[in-house]
Amino acid sequence: MADTKGLIVKKNENFTDWYSDLLLKAELADYAPTRGFMIIRPRAYAIWEAIQKNFDLTLKDKDVQNAYFPLLIPDSFFKKEAKHAEGFAPELAYVEQKDDEQRLAIRPTSETIMYDSYSKWIRSWRDLPLKLNQWCNVLRWEVKQTKPFVRTREFLWQEGHCAFATEDEAIDNMNEMMGSYQKLVEELLAIPVIVGKKSKMEKFAGAVTTLTLEALMPDGKALQMGTSHNLGQGFAKAFNVMYKDRNENDNFVWQTSWGFSTRLIGALTMVHGDDKGLVLPPKVAVNKAVIVPILFEDSKKKVLTKCVNIKNKLSTFGCLVDDREEYNPGWKFSDWEMKGIPLRIEIGPKDLDKKQVVIVRRDNGVKEIVSEKDVVKRVKEILDDIQKNLYLNARKFLDSRIDSARDLSQLGKKLDEGKIVKVFMKDDIKIEEKLKEKTGANSRIIEEQAVEGVCVVSGEKTKTLAYVARNY
Amino acid sequence: MADTKGLIVKKNENFTDWYSDLLLKAELADYAPTRGFMIIRPRAYAIWEAIQKNFDLTLKDKDVQNAYFPLLIPDSFFKKEAKHAEGFAPELAYVEQKDDEQRLAIRPTSETIMYDSYSKWIRSWRDLPLKLNQWCNVLRWEVKQTKPFVRTREFLWQEGHCAFATEDEAIDNMNEMMGSYQKLVEELLAIPVIVGKKSKMEKFAGAVTTLTLEALMPDGKALQMGTSHNLGQGFAKAFNVMYKDRNENDNFVWQTSWGFSTRLIGALTMVHGDDKGLVLPPKVAVNKAVIVPILFEDSKKKVLTKCVNIKNKLSTFGCLVDDREEYNPGWKFSDWEMKGIPLRIEIGPKDLDKKQVVIVRRDNGVKEIVSEKDVVKRVKEILDDIQKNLYLNARKFLDSRIDSARDLSQLGKKLDEGKIVKVFMKDDIKIEEKLKEKTGANSRIIEEQAVEGVCVVSGEKTKTLAYVARNY
Repeated sequence: MADTKGLIVKKNENFTDWYSDLLLKAELADYAPTRGFMIIRPRAYAIWEAIQKNFDLTLKDKDVQNAYFPLLIPDSFFKKEAKHAEGFAPELAYVEQKDDEQRLAIRPTSETIMYDSYSKWIRSWRDLPLKLNQWCNVLRWEVKQTKPFVRTREFLWQEGHCAFATEDEAIDNMNEMMGSYQKLVEELLAIPVIVGKKSKMEKFAGAVTTLTLEALMPDGKALQMGTSHNLGQGFAKAFNVMYKDRNENDNFVWQTSWGFSTRLIGALTMVHGDDKGLVLPPKVAVNKAVIVPILFEDSKKKVLTKCVNIKNKLSTFGCLVDDREEYNPGWKFSDWEMKGIPLRIEIGPKDLDKKQVVIVRRDNGVKEIVSEKDVVKRVKEILDDIQKNLYLNARKFLDSRIDSARDLSQLGKKLDEGKIVKVFMKDDIKIEEKLKEKTGANSRIIEEQAVEGVCVVSGEKTKTLAYVARNY
Repeated sequence: MADTKGLIVKKNENFTDWYSDLLLKAELADYAPTRGFMIIRPRAYAIWEAIQKNFDLTLKDKDVQNAYFPLLIPDSFFKKEAKHAEGFAPELAYVEQKDDEQRLAIRPTSETIMYDSYSKWIRSWRDLPLKLNQWCNVLRWEVKQTKPFVRTREFLWQEGHCAFATEDEAIDNMNEMMGSYQKLVEELLAIPVIVGKKSKMEKFAGAVTTLTLEALMPDGKALQMGTSHNLGQGFAKAFNVMYKDRNENDNFVWQTSWGFSTRLIGALTMVHGDDKGLVLPPKVAVNKAVIVPILFEDSKKKVLTKCVNIKNKLSTFGCLVDDREEYNPGWKFSDWEMKGIPLRIEIGPKDLDKKQVVIVRRDNGVKEIVSEKDVVKRVKEILDDIQKNLYLNARKFLDSRIDSARDLSQLGKKLDEGKIVKVFMKDDIKIEEKLKEKTGANSRIIEEQAVEGVCVVSGEKTKTLAYVARNY
């Protein structure tokens, strides 16, 4: 049962408290009894299912097959690829040993255990490409402050793992999947993103190249929405994943991996939510409209009959009728606003007489009287317009927050304004560590430029431009 | 790449080896580097997806919502419900403690962590019934010999957890879900089952009543296919799950839980598989037919065009064309038989002239020439017939293996024949332990009878009849 008292603070007054309060009141998440964990409640899980359904079609379309590998990974596997081991070591959670079994860690990601199998399954060029994906839970023992959906010790995600005969195919796959991610995030979730390459410091532990999609949250912090890695042959060599080509020569495969997580639910909540609660983009909402009857004793039966009749016409939109008698219409309006349903349809005795309904948009609150005969057509149009409107508003915000700076002091000022700031910076781990130290920010994306500039940290000449932002 | 050498042993010669070999060769599963774990390969995972898709509709239809709760459960939670704690203690795997955190176990089932939340979420009668389900992985540290799908330390499952205002509603729900399970298993997987109540010894740790569905594997061992529990108010009292009724009085809720797992994939493989490999019931198969072109240099192009043409006509059946040039038709026949695809369609130059195709059934190998214009209609009919035929064959087998016995010696003999044997037996833990000791079997189901009989173990008079079998 949602709390009708509304949110305790406004989004632009205290963003952090607004987010936490919204998650609880819209029944998206709850804190778990285990520190750093979260409970994904049905309203949020339904968003995840919508994302899964959409992306699973993409996977099938690209001949990627779903599979499932064990939760527990032998510790020895992590040690096989040096960079990977180093990157994940601090976040591993181990299982108490029961017997003479080797030491086992709960998966933080599955490269190692999957590629151990790939080395058995791949024999010849006929077995390539091998494209597998799994939808599963992973665990990373975060020491930073956790935040539901955005950073938790356990989260749900998909991880795709492909092996190819050539480097070109692997690079194409990395790019192609990043394109699919961008489409998913922008078209389904209505969240605009910047796409690019990660710096040496920020790339995935074990990758040659990492591509990322970055969104900007309303508080000016960047959020990584998904990554796609070209793993080169590093893991192939560590796990001995080889194939015989058509000439019977042995070769190592070229690999990619790519993933996004339930973090997307957090991004959607932050970007579109408002002071009344959650705002769901219509394409993600299972129930895109709710009919709230305005009931009076003498016309109750007639009004309810009409509501059911309109609901049936709108069945493709998952339209609901809220006929609960224990709540009044005002309470129901607030309740559905909190839950983010895209459209509210009000029907009372007067509307019956006039053969009309009242439609109220969740995104901007605009009210419209629609004649009964046009209701299906109009609902579709308004939903399309909401989806577009949410994206455009977020796009405007993102565009207004991309800026540039010439030196560290200007950079710091613009970061304080919640911006993504473009600066020349050498792609070098030590230099980026200094940037972090001085500004509390790091690069989200790094881009090669045709012209040279001056590195904001070292003052050296460089051709790489960094998108710098504070981040989650 | 499937092995074309076929299976190393026949199903009726060495059932255990046949099963292991089939799992590997049909690419359903592979052994994991972690002992007692398994890898679910795409061909098996697709079966799981078909099951999920089917059952998710049932869940939606019954207003059950999907959610996700944490993988790690505080140890203290298990201790709250005494029977539950006792039942699961030996199988719990704990995480090495990182900090001052409480001791955490990997979930073997989620009653405790879910009902902790239920106690917060449920306030009044308006919040009832609460019906949640989660699709997730669970871990039980089995000490018995493991077997892929049938018994592994980690498996995938669904667990439904409902809370009601009254006992009657809980009992109805337990029965209703058992009905849905039976429909799923018999109609989708074509596996006949016996449904009934578990004995005191065999019921779920913490349940008042456990209902079960039991199937009989070809080697005469019973396999539990799913269970549905009436939990009474035991957990509600342990976790303080209460609601205010319409008169503002406080009451404990009445609860149920129910689940089935990836074990169903093992059952399907065992029941329908044969000496050529896997046999998929058509309703579970994503690809229900494959076209194998018979290619000769001079007619190749024409034949392939025809194959694509027929494939398009059969798109609703997920029909494939196997146009790989590196394999000959004979190899492909064996390959698809191993993988269990329900129908093979052969098209060669002679068939083109006669405007016909050759259809071969996977279940019984029957070959049929079908004119091109009838192909869609005929494929549908044959697929329906295969689904029915698989069920009927399994039904015949099950019926032929249900028997009864008057005493322990007769019981032992019939168990050795691989039968499910009905005997009078008192529903008493000590008596059932003796049964286990003397026969190596236990009760799968216990039934109240109108008439009295003599307990095969104790010789006492009793009105309870047990279905006794060896089991996995």
